[in-house]
Amino acid sequence: MDTVFCNVTAVTMDEAMHILPGAFVGVRGGRIAYIGRKMPAEPVKEAIDGTGMVLMPGLINCHTHLAMTGLRGWSDDKPLQPWLEDCGRIEDKLDDRAVRCMTQLGLMELLRFGTTSFSDMYDHVDAIAQAVAECGIKANLARGTTMFLGDGFDWRTFPACVELRECVEKWHEYDDGRIRIEASVHGEYTSTYQLWEALADYAADENLGMHVHLSETRDEHEACLERNGLTPAQVLDCHRVWDTRAMAAHCVWLDEEDMGLLARRHVSAVHCPVSNLKLGSGIAPVVKLRAEGMNVALGTDSAASNNNLDLFEEIKTAALLAKVQSGDPSALPAAEVLKMATRGGALAQGRDDECGQIAIGMDADLILLDFTQPHLIPCHNVVSQLVYAASGHDVALTMVRGRILYRDGTFPTIDELAVLRELKDYVIPNFFEAKDEDKTGDKA
Amino acid sequence: MDTVFCNVTAVTMDEAMHILPGAFVGVRGGRIAYIGRKMPAEPVKEAIDGTGMVLMPGLINCHTHLAMTGLRGWSDDKPLQPWLEDCGRIEDKLDDRAVRCMTQLGLMELLRFGTTSFSDMYDHVDAIAQAVAECGIKANLARGTTMFLGDGFDWRTFPACVELRECVEKWHEYDDGRIRIEASVHGEYTSTYQLWEALADYAADENLGMHVHLSETRDEHEACLERNGLTPAQVLDCHRVWDTRAMAAHCVWLDEEDMGLLARRHVSAVHCPVSNLKLGSGIAPVVKLRAEGMNVALGTDSAASNNNLDLFEEIKTAALLAKVQSGDPSALPAAEVLKMATRGGALAQGRDDECGQIAIGMDADLILLDFTQPHLIPCHNVVSQLVYAASGHDVALTMVRGRILYRDGTFPTIDELAVLRELKDYVIPNFFEAKDEDKTGDKA
Repeated sequence: MDTVFCNVTAVTMDEAMHILPGAFVGVRGGRIAYIGRKMPAEPVKEAIDGTGMVLMPGLINCHTHLAMTGLRGWSDDKPLQPWLEDCGRIEDKLDDRAVRCMTQLGLMELLRFGTTSFSDMYDHVDAIAQAVAECGIKANLARGTTMFLGDGFDWRTFPACVELRECVEKWHEYDDGRIRIEASVHGEYTSTYQLWEALADYAADENLGMHVHLSETRDEHEACLERNGLTPAQVLDCHRVWDTRAMAAHCVWLDEEDMGLLARRHVSAVHCPVSNLKLGSGIAPVVKLRAEGMNVALGTDSAASNNNLDLFEEIKTAALLAKVQSGDPSALPAAEVLKMATRGGALAQGRDDECGQIAIGMDADLILLDFTQPHLIPCHNVVSQLVYAASGHDVALTMVRGRILYRDGTFPTIDELAVLRELKDYVIPNFFEAKDEDKTGDKA
Repeated sequence: MDTVFCNVTAVTMDEAMHILPGAFVGVRGGRIAYIGRKMPAEPVKEAIDGTGMVLMPGLINCHTHLAMTGLRGWSDDKPLQPWLEDCGRIEDKLDDRAVRCMTQLGLMELLRFGTTSFSDMYDHVDAIAQAVAECGIKANLARGTTMFLGDGFDWRTFPACVELRECVEKWHEYDDGRIRIEASVHGEYTSTYQLWEALADYAADENLGMHVHLSETRDEHEACLERNGLTPAQVLDCHRVWDTRAMAAHCVWLDEEDMGLLARRHVSAVHCPVSNLKLGSGIAPVVKLRAEGMNVALGTDSAASNNNLDLFEEIKTAALLAKVQSGDPSALPAAEVLKMATRGGALAQGRDDECGQIAIGMDADLILLDFTQPHLIPCHNVVSQLVYAASGHDVALTMVRGRILYRDGTFPTIDELAVLRELKDYVIPNFFEAKDEDKTGDKA
């Protein structure tokens, strides 16, 4: 056995939501190989004392733009349009080197807060994939694509599509599927049907996932309805976008017909409650989405609209918003929202056969939380504690496929000081200087 | 000089919201005695290196029931009535010893997350005051009082009023005002005018504050309107409850007339957004409360309805909810909500002349946050970072009146192990055992 977590409280997140106090969980060859009440009989390379600790499956963050971690706090408390412009002015200038550095910064934060797999949408995907490959985390990396050219569009030469195909060639199924490349229609409002159909057909042919922003704002949703007589979900459906495994980020303004349609097409909704609040977009109808049969996962969105990547905040916020939205404090109880952050995410990523629960044969994508701190005492109910009292800061160890990627403030696979130096010496001076001129308004 | 924080970024929270990078802040005799760009000339007992750190005024948590920290996670995801019953069955049995222990547990959490002063409402106030006296934190302690006896009420012999008077005698203005005792009408719906008038007159005579639950739920608000033809704010006004410095917790369902009335009476609203969401009560109209002239402070409410005491969560949640409520992402910007958590709290507590900002002569109620961690990098905007990216976990040091009460995981004035032992050996077995029989329903 490579590693055994000893005497932990294991929250399995399997169908029965077992809570196993005093458990021993063993890892061999990157997978969970043992779950018992005592040390396994075979020799053990590393025994990790888990007394007072909770072991659970790693969290799955299904909607990020990780490179935007460098834009954390760059533009806050502004309406959507000036915010987009503030961010866009920086993003338009970025090069691979800057994207790689800011991605590494985001990777540290994901791991520190207990995320073991994430779904990203951005450009410069090759640079992002390199950082992910080195770091050891799992990722579905989508090449977010916008296109307004209309009929002149040629799929073979359109730069974003060329980049997508190159990334698929180079990175798709890298390291036995640890990295997967996905297609991405950025949104209904930022492209036309020529792109949708080309990407949809390509994704279906290559068995790629599809990552889309859907009905995030009321304006976006209603403008589409006015233009087409159909909602974004319906228009994209007409153009085959849901023909492959797809995830739709936000889903704030879906109507019930949309929900039924997307459920039938097995599209997962990715609920990003903090970002939706911060940009004033609204509150996604999570209880209804689930009642209509949709799988719902959670996402932080980028650090520019959040402003951190601690998915425990989304877990708590999702549960709280469901209660106030329905006026029913029993809505979206703790166990359900924790499932969204683990198994729901795994299903959305097409990884439900490999992670999202603690079970023999699953990848050892695990996090250990320190439950000995005052704010987690007493512990009458472990699941409730994880959802309502804990935070990503309580994560002491993050493991992906049996490899420790975060432990007590250190990142064994990332050179933290080099990343911070690169940010300070290259990224900030080259892309963020002349800050005041770049902004649309003053800050408080 | 007793202590100097060296090379910190100081967020002063004074009227001009100065941000002072590379600042040196000196403390003498429990007060802020120096703010400069270099070490003060006089001898310094302890110099604390603040490189990469942010120094700000301690947070002020204006609505807690601290002893309920022991009920964290005891009853979640339930409607209000079964939740109240679950908690009440435990609370009815509590003795001074248990309340003292659970209060100490809550004090550790407050300090660990950067709170330097709090306003509590509970019974067993003598036990709570003892714990607060030993620990060194500031507190306004209200004896929450309910009463349904009607005309038979005798102020001189009613037990809660006797307890209040004894506590005023023993604890009011203890340690030069570090502890203040307050009167408390628990709520309009849990007492009658005889109590209101008796407490109001006593509070006015003794110059005590008044702490009230006000219009937390729609039912409570509308039932009062139906019974009296007046809202809770108006009814209590008729009976002199706002004649002294008062704080009204929740204020979720106030109408505009209420807001104007309470503003004129200088009543502070205490916004408890996380608790209000978790119990499904609603979202307080914070932007309107402020527009109508009310001072708004923040509170966690108890750990039984939150489930932690990290006021940074309230700060972020308040800002986010204001945006989604108004559909305007520029509503309640970062600096404004941070003021609510510091100066707003100080004003609500009647402590605005002693704390809530970094200024010469103010008490040294200060917190130091570690901004060198990945999730707080880069830092384009310190105030935005504090509100949207930071958490109480980032607090490295908490100081009240120049005395360090929390530092890097340790509590110099609290015997952490003794508190945890008392909780485990006395409180849990005596008050929480036979848990299953005590609960109204099953847990997930």
